[in-house]
Amino acid sequence: MSNLDTLVQDLVIANRILAREEVADAYGHVSVRDPDNPNRFLISRSLAPELVGPDDIVALDLDGQPVRDERRSLYLERFIHAAIFAARPDVMAVVHAHAEDTLPFGVTPATKLRPVIHLGSFIGHEVSVWDIADRFGDTSLLVTNMAQANDLAQCLAGNRVALMRGHGFVAATPSLIEAVRVSVYLPRNARALMRARQLGGEVRYLSHGEIEAHNRGYSPHSAATWRAWEYWANRAGCGHLLTRPDSGHGESPKG
Amino acid sequence: MSNLDTLVQDLVIANRILAREEVADAYGHVSVRDPDNPNRFLISRSLAPELVGPDDIVALDLDGQPVRDERRSLYLERFIHAAIFAARPDVMAVVHAHAEDTLPFGVTPATKLRPVIHLGSFIGHEVSVWDIADRFGDTSLLVTNMAQANDLAQCLAGNRVALMRGHGFVAATPSLIEAVRVSVYLPRNARALMRARQLGGEVRYLSHGEIEAHNRGYSPHSAATWRAWEYWANRAGCGHLLTRPDSGHGESPKG
Amino acid sequence: MSNLDTLVQDLVIANRILAREEVADAYGHVSVRDPDNPNRFLISRSLAPELVGPDDIVALDLDGQPVRDERRSLYLERFIHAAIFAARPDVMAVVHAHAEDTLPFGVTPATKLRPVIHLGSFIGHEVSVWDIADRFGDTSLLVTNMAQANDLAQCLAGNRVALMRGHGFVAATPSLIEAVRVSVYLPRNARALMRARQLGGEVRYLSHGEIEAHNRGYSPHSAATWRAWEYWANRAGCGHLLTRPDSGHGESPKG
Amino acid sequence: MSNLDTLVQDLVIANRILAREEVADAYGHVSVRDPDNPNRFLISRSLAPELVGPDDIVALDLDGQPVRDERRSLYLERFIHAAIFAARPDVMAVVHAHAEDTLPFGVTPATKLRPVIHLGSFIGHEVSVWDIADRFGDTSLLVTNMAQANDLAQCLAGNRVALMRGHGFVAATPSLIEAVRVSVYLPRNARALMRARQLGGEVRYLSHGEIEAHNRGYSPHSAATWRAWEYWANRAGCGHLLTRPDSGHGESPKG
Repeated sequence: MSNLDTLVQDLVIANRILAREEVADAYGHVSVRDPDNPNRFLISRSLAPELVGPDDIVALDLDGQPVRDERRSLYLERFIHAAIFAARPDVMAVVHAHAEDTLPFGVTPATKLRPVIHLGSFIGHEVSVWDIADRFGDTSLLVTNMAQANDLAQCLAGNRVALMRGHGFVAATPSLIEAVRVSVYLPRNARALMRARQLGGEVRYLSHGEIEAHNRGYSPHSAATWRAWEYWANRAGCGHLLTRPDSGHGESPKG
Repeated sequence: MSNLDTLVQDLVIANRILAREEVADAYGHVSVRDPDNPNRFLISRSLAPELVGPDDIVALDLDGQPVRDERRSLYLERFIHAAIFAARPDVMAVVHAHAEDTLPFGVTPATKLRPVIHLGSFIGHEVSVWDIADRFGDTSLLVTNMAQANDLAQCLAGNRVALMRGHGFVAATPSLIEAVRVSVYLPRNARALMRARQLGGEVRYLSHGEIEAHNRGYSPHSAATWRAWEYWANRAGCGHLLTRPDSGHGESPKG
Repeated sequence: MSNLDTLVQDLVIANRILAREEVADAYGHVSVRDPDNPNRFLISRSLAPELVGPDDIVALDLDGQPVRDERRSLYLERFIHAAIFAARPDVMAVVHAHAEDTLPFGVTPATKLRPVIHLGSFIGHEVSVWDIADRFGDTSLLVTNMAQANDLAQCLAGNRVALMRGHGFVAATPSLIEAVRVSVYLPRNARALMRARQLGGEVRYLSHGEIEAHNRGYSPHSAATWRAWEYWANRAGCGHLLTRPDSGHGESPKG
Repeated sequence: MSNLDTLVQDLVIANRILAREEVADAYGHVSVRDPDNPNRFLISRSLAPELVGPDDIVALDLDGQPVRDERRSLYLERFIHAAIFAARPDVMAVVHAHAEDTLPFGVTPATKLRPVIHLGSFIGHEVSVWDIADRFGDTSLLVTNMAQANDLAQCLAGNRVALMRGHGFVAATPSLIEAVRVSVYLPRNARALMRARQLGGEVRYLSHGEIEAHNRGYSPHSAATWRAWEYWANRAGCGHLLTRPDSGHGESPKG
């Protein structure tokens, strides 16, 4: 298989995982930058992530326009991906979705979403909340053009995650596997924090040093990372699509 | 297939979706007005929505009586549908169900159910709570005749959703697909609001302008709407029953 | 099939439903009185309800002892059933289980479990909490003899449901189908009440008159009751075991 | 089958159960001491518990090193198991996982996790919270060497369960079946306690005497224990792997 074929297959797996893990429902999308052509990214045509197959993947440019003639409908909010890939050369994958347990933190300014569990350290020290109304007034809350998407990308700044008020979140990471991972553990960390607050008393968040230490130790090619990808892909019914990377990580006793 | 056959099939799909998405359990029902005969509507005989097939669909008149001789049991609360179709010529589909997370808002007068997420905008600015006891005193809370159903329809007024105290909700919309959509996102918005309130501090609701903008942008024939219908039908195990509308929406790059 | 064979089959269905609806896990049991021999009741041998088949059903007497030679293990807490059948001639079926959302109400004396939704009316005006420690001091909390079981039956008195502190609940009803029904809607009413209390402000409970009215209207042989039984049995994978009662209820347009 | 083969098979079942019951996801692991060689324990290579088969089981020594040449990746946190087996001759099985509902109690020092339900009595009177930062400062929160693992084992002391701040829990028990049992009921007890606290007012915990009485009555070879193991194994799709112990417990009418 060519590199691009492998990437398409991994993107299909990522779609299915996000559906299975309830990060996405009919809505939500995931994209990956074309490594050979960094001004393009791959994303599904307008389709629920659970139903995405290789033939549904299209290539868009950094204005969110299809690079080839395309008669099929595209995601209305594809501009989110375009703007983040344009603003962030370090980012190789983007997720936008409405995972339910991230929503409360988008509408309660008094409470910040911050890591309380080690798997939450991927989201960074703090998660900004972007409010489309600040610059665009009363809208449908959907991000439907490059101006809105650029504003969101600016709010995201150099971070991995931003919440969108009354809407959902975006995650932007150096690899596809990390985008999925952040998207799965973001709502989990949110639930742990909500329940901890309900228990009452002081909540112990991860320290800055702990967040740094955890993220320093993370590698998208480690055995521990692969273990999660393999697990999620199997849960999502597409274990047979897995392409084991040839990084040789299977041979060192880490993870 | 005739238009009526298609409608029956779509109603079967709607039943299955409401079951799969936990809007209905053994109880709850969905109906659609016959477009060729607006004084009639289609609804299942007395049967759990998960088990409904084409042969279970019956036609009732606006008094809730079967238009053909019918020996099978009918839903006790079918009058709800009759009264709403009678009072609201704009309504083409009605759902009544007990989705669990709508129930708390029906019994806590101090807290209003309002949209906090964009997908909640379908429910409108605010959701009234109908209390059967106000006019009918101590009852089983079931709506078992036209007088009760007419009172409920009056409380619903021109809105899309009303809660029923200690019982459930009704949704009334211009199309079947919207009735399903509102019914799925109503409990989701309820959960987001409950959790936001538990986090504490001010909760940012959608503004009136945002609700209007979101609903203005909505079309029951858009690619984004179809995407959800297709997704839910597949989840409910009846993707094979889908009839793609010939609206040509598959060809424009929106959604 | 003989009446007893039908009863055994219905008891198998009841076991599977309680498992599927998460009322029981490995623990929890359901029994039915033998109508031809009211000093006996039928219950599974010691087995998780999900795994119970016809051959696992045994007959016990009102001391909880097997009426026939029995080499297989029996439920340690079978005395609960024996004591309730002995104390309550009106009761034909008993469930004891640990449904998770009933547990909080068993350990918080300040908050009573009462009906807030119409389907909760089956549990009655108020639900007593039996505390084994009141008469028996420090125990394992398990009901392991007739003295403890009789004390529980006394606390239950003439009601349908009692909670057991730190343990679970018992339900005692005039028919098997009602025992299942109460057991499924008891935790649902508990969840609605818990969430309503979290929303804050006054909670509107069902009035005494409403509870009476709802229960007066209930019949274990109505179409609406059958609808739920048929739905749950199908969900539990044993729709093929259903024996439709010959009550002719399928012909009257109620429900 | 040899005793070791049986043990390997039981360890596979334990892995699958922890996955099915949502105690483990991609992460989390379970180990069992080799009874014939108490300085060794069995655990899977680095693999999600849901995917573990007999060939994935490896033997490690009490420094967490493989006793045979092993080219495959091992769990990064295997030292947890090594340290607990070294410190606690009475312990035959260890679980470490991140079960979601245990997490809030790890980050809220003001609220102790204590038994409120009888099935929670297995966790003991009180559950300590180990904070890796106390001795090791800013880390990734992962336990990656023997020094950290020994510190955790010291905090666990003679108890069955300890929470790990911002991370998860460990359970250490006299048998494999008990390790699974504690791990399943620990989050359940946590949920019951969280919800009881939300209801407000005093919460009635199990007394010391009740915890003692319940645990005294427990046997890993009783019919009641087997019932749960059999149930969980079947739910996890590996009922066919069950080896019924020859303890003859099937013949006594307890449980």
